[in-house]
Amino acid sequence: MNKLLEKLAIKLPIIQAPMAGVSTPAMASEVANAGGLGSLGVGGLNAQDAREMIRATQQLTALSINVNVFCHQPAVADVKRESAWLSFLSPQFKRFDSQPPAQLNEIYTSFIEDDAMLEVLLELRPRVVSFHFGLPAQRKIALLKECGIVLLSTATNLDEAMVAQNEGIDAVVAQGYEAGGHRGMFDPAKVDDRLGIFALTRLLVANLDIPVIAAGGIMDGAGIVAAMDLGAQAVQLGTAFVGCPESSADQFFRAALQSEAALHTTMTSAISGRPARCLANLFTAIGDETDRSAIPNYPIAYDAGKALNAAAKKLGEGGFGAHWAGQGAPLCRSVPVANLMVLLLSEMEAARTNR
Amino acid sequence: MNKLLEKLAIKLPIIQAPMAGVSTPAMASEVANAGGLGSLGVGGLNAQDAREMIRATQQLTALSINVNVFCHQPAVADVKRESAWLSFLSPQFKRFDSQPPAQLNEIYTSFIEDDAMLEVLLELRPRVVSFHFGLPAQRKIALLKECGIVLLSTATNLDEAMVAQNEGIDAVVAQGYEAGGHRGMFDPAKVDDRLGIFALTRLLVANLDIPVIAAGGIMDGAGIVAAMDLGAQAVQLGTAFVGCPESSADQFFRAALQSEAALHTTMTSAISGRPARCLANLFTAIGDETDRSAIPNYPIAYDAGKALNAAAKKLGEGGFGAHWAGQGAPLCRSVPVANLMVLLLSEMEAARTNR
Repeated sequence: MNKLLEKLAIKLPIIQAPMAGVSTPAMASEVANAGGLGSLGVGGLNAQDAREMIRATQQLTALSINVNVFCHQPAVADVKRESAWLSFLSPQFKRFDSQPPAQLNEIYTSFIEDDAMLEVLLELRPRVVSFHFGLPAQRKIALLKECGIVLLSTATNLDEAMVAQNEGIDAVVAQGYEAGGHRGMFDPAKVDDRLGIFALTRLLVANLDIPVIAAGGIMDGAGIVAAMDLGAQAVQLGTAFVGCPESSADQFFRAALQSEAALHTTMTSAISGRPARCLANLFTAIGDETDRSAIPNYPIAYDAGKALNAAAKKLGEGGFGAHWAGQGAPLCRSVPVANLMVLLLSEMEAARTNR
Repeated sequence: MNKLLEKLAIKLPIIQAPMAGVSTPAMASEVANAGGLGSLGVGGLNAQDAREMIRATQQLTALSINVNVFCHQPAVADVKRESAWLSFLSPQFKRFDSQPPAQLNEIYTSFIEDDAMLEVLLELRPRVVSFHFGLPAQRKIALLKECGIVLLSTATNLDEAMVAQNEGIDAVVAQGYEAGGHRGMFDPAKVDDRLGIFALTRLLVANLDIPVIAAGGIMDGAGIVAAMDLGAQAVQLGTAFVGCPESSADQFFRAALQSEAALHTTMTSAISGRPARCLANLFTAIGDETDRSAIPNYPIAYDAGKALNAAAKKLGEGGFGAHWAGQGAPLCRSVPVANLMVLLLSEMEAARTNR
């Protein structure tokens, strides 16, 4: 057992990614009870809802869980851009006998200004808290650490990883460009070097003193063993868990994941306002034709994105969903979490002995 | 020893990538003599020059070598676009007291229409011939195979890999998005799913009957072991060899590779007319600001690119070079090829026992 696993108090080097809107108390607790680190994504919830989700999970497992919060810079409203965006999307709403919302709101609060969420974390004390899109102020980091909470941060490049290390984060999640969902870059206005999991993991392992968790495109035991060969002390898998019955992915997302569509993922900002890897669908096609500067700030754009998806789904069209998935999507298996964990373990064993 | 290595008649699962303009007879023969597969990139040469390069290599080693040819669709000339491109680049030439060329030429011939090159290959019979950018006609494939030549093809996605398998290619080189140099996609007009080495290798291993060679961002023994855990039967390393004294990389390229610049690679079409991963430099910055439709066809654009680089270098500016490199560039080591091969082997051993 390596030092990271000791710190996280888990037996297996497998972290289930905290997929906001997809991971559930059932998923996280099943992963935890199987020896991995189960995660909840509460970035899209208010403190009260987050409390309920964490409590529900803690009732299902006494083992380590990870609660992920979003640390993006709060959105800058731009009424002109937002109404232009709604006008632009209006024909899409019309296709589904629907109207775009009258205005767009910042539908959730960044952890960097959400003191109520901090209180919930300090009270419920999950073993692990992880940050995405950046880091909170040093005061919050210190308060969480004083409670004995282990802290993780996403890093998409060496600069971000060094910042995390310097701020006292315990380990970084090296998020490769192939990873599904929101790209965790601290500043979405900066040039993205688009580092894949392979090069990124080697680069971070060579340059950091803190442990590295590899993420992006890992779907099976062979991938886990490979990532650990690269020097990662654990891995994080998201898409691998989306098809499990414990996930809250809807039928459209599940169907897309089982179809040819899984072969084509793309990075889009059109759905939420920040780059995120998604199964290519009707919404990402709109994004491909759109100048990014026309898209409202994250998560204001997401207000429109969610409304459009809801309108389309009502009429049976699932092609506007935020079907976040990594490049390994075609290798997704729709089995219960407990079975998937057993499979991953036996595949790891096989990969190690086949050598 | 796996079946691919038997077929290639090599001891080690290490292929030195055929980097046109960078790999040399000395490099390829040193790799071969150390037990790997040394490669020559003759895509930018005419048949006579290719013959000399292959002969020179065969005089340095009797072991397997690989000769790589380009199978792109021949360029479509567009005088209007080409002269607009030269006008656009003209201020850059002026910075270096130089004039852009009066016109641009297709500076080399695709193997799909180069029968003289086919004759050279049939006569000199390297153990391996590899194709980049697509495949030649079945007639050429059959003639090469009749001579006992083993055939490899780059594939950037499952579709291309299936085509290669169906055409009788012996193994595919799974080129991840992180790989340096020209992206081997068969049709550059198609949407690129940008698959990283990790997901691409797993996907191809799961779906092909022929062996997979993993490429993209592999720089050391840990990377080699990881790629093989993903199911690859061999790996291909390019950037890892660029800094070796046997490479023909110039001083500017070597200096860039040893600097902070190595942390930032980017995919650009501005230098050659096709997407290629390059250390970010003055030329790629121009590309970032340019609509791809303004760039002449490959390799016509490369005629301008090479002229601009030559003009800049004359005045000591190396920032317009085709500094093709993968995302692992910061991990490059400038040691002789023979030493690098020994290092890679010992690192592989360490990665396997550290487990």
